[in-house]
Amino acid sequence: MAHTDPNVWWQRSDLCYQDYELYFAGQSVQQLAEQFGTPSFVYSTARVEDNLRRIRDALKNAGLERRSSIFYAMKANRFAPLLRFIKQTGLCGIDACSPNEVKHAVSCGFKPSEISFTATSLSIKDFKELARYDGLFMDCDTLHAIKSWGKLKPGSEIGIRINPAVGIGRSCNDKLHYAGCKTTKFGIYHEQFEQALELAAQYKLTVRKIHFHTGCGYLTPELEQLDHVMSECMKFVDSAPDVRRVNIGGGLGVPHLADDQSLDLERWAAILSKHFAERHLHIEVEPGDYICKDAGLLLLGKTYVEQKKDTVFVGVDAGFNIAPEPAYYGLPFQPVPLLTDNSPLSSMTVVGNINEALDVWYENAQLPELEQHDYLALINAGAYSSSMASNHCMRGEFNEYLID
Amino acid sequence: MAHTDPNVWWQRSDLCYQDYELYFAGQSVQQLAEQFGTPSFVYSTARVEDNLRRIRDALKNAGLERRSSIFYAMKANRFAPLLRFIKQTGLCGIDACSPNEVKHAVSCGFKPSEISFTATSLSIKDFKELARYDGLFMDCDTLHAIKSWGKLKPGSEIGIRINPAVGIGRSCNDKLHYAGCKTTKFGIYHEQFEQALELAAQYKLTVRKIHFHTGCGYLTPELEQLDHVMSECMKFVDSAPDVRRVNIGGGLGVPHLADDQSLDLERWAAILSKHFAERHLHIEVEPGDYICKDAGLLLLGKTYVEQKKDTVFVGVDAGFNIAPEPAYYGLPFQPVPLLTDNSPLSSMTVVGNINEALDVWYENAQLPELEQHDYLALINAGAYSSSMASNHCMRGEFNEYLID
Repeated sequence: MAHTDPNVWWQRSDLCYQDYELYFAGQSVQQLAEQFGTPSFVYSTARVEDNLRRIRDALKNAGLERRSSIFYAMKANRFAPLLRFIKQTGLCGIDACSPNEVKHAVSCGFKPSEISFTATSLSIKDFKELARYDGLFMDCDTLHAIKSWGKLKPGSEIGIRINPAVGIGRSCNDKLHYAGCKTTKFGIYHEQFEQALELAAQYKLTVRKIHFHTGCGYLTPELEQLDHVMSECMKFVDSAPDVRRVNIGGGLGVPHLADDQSLDLERWAAILSKHFAERHLHIEVEPGDYICKDAGLLLLGKTYVEQKKDTVFVGVDAGFNIAPEPAYYGLPFQPVPLLTDNSPLSSMTVVGNINEALDVWYENAQLPELEQHDYLALINAGAYSSSMASNHCMRGEFNEYLID
Repeated sequence: MAHTDPNVWWQRSDLCYQDYELYFAGQSVQQLAEQFGTPSFVYSTARVEDNLRRIRDALKNAGLERRSSIFYAMKANRFAPLLRFIKQTGLCGIDACSPNEVKHAVSCGFKPSEISFTATSLSIKDFKELARYDGLFMDCDTLHAIKSWGKLKPGSEIGIRINPAVGIGRSCNDKLHYAGCKTTKFGIYHEQFEQALELAAQYKLTVRKIHFHTGCGYLTPELEQLDHVMSECMKFVDSAPDVRRVNIGGGLGVPHLADDQSLDLERWAAILSKHFAERHLHIEVEPGDYICKDAGLLLLGKTYVEQKKDTVFVGVDAGFNIAPEPAYYGLPFQPVPLLTDNSPLSSMTVVGNINEALDVWYENAQLPELEQHDYLALINAGAYSSSMASNHCMRGEFNEYLID
């Protein structure tokens, strides 16, 4: 019997309760936790592939199939078996942002020509290392980068990362602010764009691509802003005559809270279609979160349940250092019991084992009586979690597993 | 000729300009950067020892020398050669918060009996591992911890971490909130304290210590709050008859901004003296920041200087992932040129090489013309920097060096 508690907004066919047990990718999560121990990240390859196909299908349905490519932003999750799986799907290339990421992607089977490289504040050492990869496509985000790359690779084709000075995104709080009213380090602004094109010409570089990234974690309500941002970006595109490709960045979000609706990909693709109908350009999109975030669970061992003053705390055996998004970015990971029964729900705050005030996984979660529970799972832990983990307090140990 | 520019508030005898060059611990920082490469953390053992002696002397001058002990909070910086040096000073023990920290401290020469252990959300596995260290002193922060330790170590002496429900600290923003109006996971509150003492008795544990930690990064203006917090904490102390030691936590701060004044340690010690004059108890203090933070520089290579729109950006070859305090906690590390001349200062924003909006080291720093500069140093990078580093974007490589 499937439980369809309306509180359980995150349930889907591959992540749901069956006979009072949580199943993920066809497996009992309780058994996964017992087998792997905790803390462990588990990633579903099927869900990753589904997410990729959903993007591809939306582009296809909008008539953009032969004019678009997907690049997976590997900074979201670089677990080698996962990268290897993604390579094998044949559905996407890689978006890399450092020389070591390129090296790692290549070691997992991607060719340099399948890698779109967009970074910031590269050193001369970085440029030299990157220049060794024939076919790697470099997006330059400063005049300095154009000069440096031009000296190493005269005659090559490049992209320019631009900044339209308008931004989007529900999550674009101060911490996730890439473009908008405040000047950021990212990309070349309108004010310097002409100079950038001249500089490229001077170094015999052909500007084949315009790249921009203007939001993160956006859902359906933000699509109107995307439309506006795209219009601004097209001003750059239209003033660079050699451009053949446009990379619209990533930023596609997944629901974090019960009130969030999934991103309407058809509407998203329709916006792209509108802007590219009259422009015979190839579209690149480089999602990270959207591909891996909801394909990962973090399995945690319960350490205690105890009331302190007015709050019931549930302790678990790992802290924010192995998955910083909830603590640092204010994007909570819903805690989910592995077993379900009919016990009443009550408010509990799930906390980790780091001696720091911000080590709170989730405040006031509605959870059942947990006496019979040894574990909890956190959803949405598949991206920007293990890839940003630290060994703070020497609590950096965790396991990672692919579920095929 | 020493430069005594009033803007250069951070200068001190072991960190200052001599003949237009920055010297740290008697060495040219330019030479250190050239020798070690960047990014590199450099730590001055002399400054660490000075900081420790300053605390000890303040306690001594307040008549508390024979009644007090210092425990270094190793989570601030666990670089093994530094821990080894701290051990050799003979001035302090270790404050540890995880089984791996205990193992590491022991491997650096500390005896278990020199370690004060205060953690949160310990698992049964953690408790069992800790129980193997004879002499390790355990502070329990939940009823659950008292029970778990009591089962493993009946008849032993413990501490109880309490929470007075009042907090202090200039830096006690939401992210650094350990005690105060909001209920946190830390310590046992007044409401559960009697039960905690009963539970300890039931498990034949003698409560020899009260532990509290109520602020972080506090400076002189916050000392009045400390006085108040201490009064609240003494209510717990006075109601636990077997207590012989009181651990007042850490939290002693160092200046981050030009307007900050150094903490007045004499006043700090006078507050302790006041509260302990009539109480024949041993005082423990466990600073982390105060001992190491201003003893460390982060040396960075300049990658570019470029105006974007209205802002001049200075790029460097490492990002917030190797020293998260500025980005995540809003505690900036002042950037400092390694060479000085008479060129006019202007406003520049120092940014790292991570593709994330929050990767900003310092906004609107007043810096000279940087054309002849290959490096910058960030001050106050000695604590909660490398110990919290991650490999985000695979940009986690850095060096660490002790300067003797």
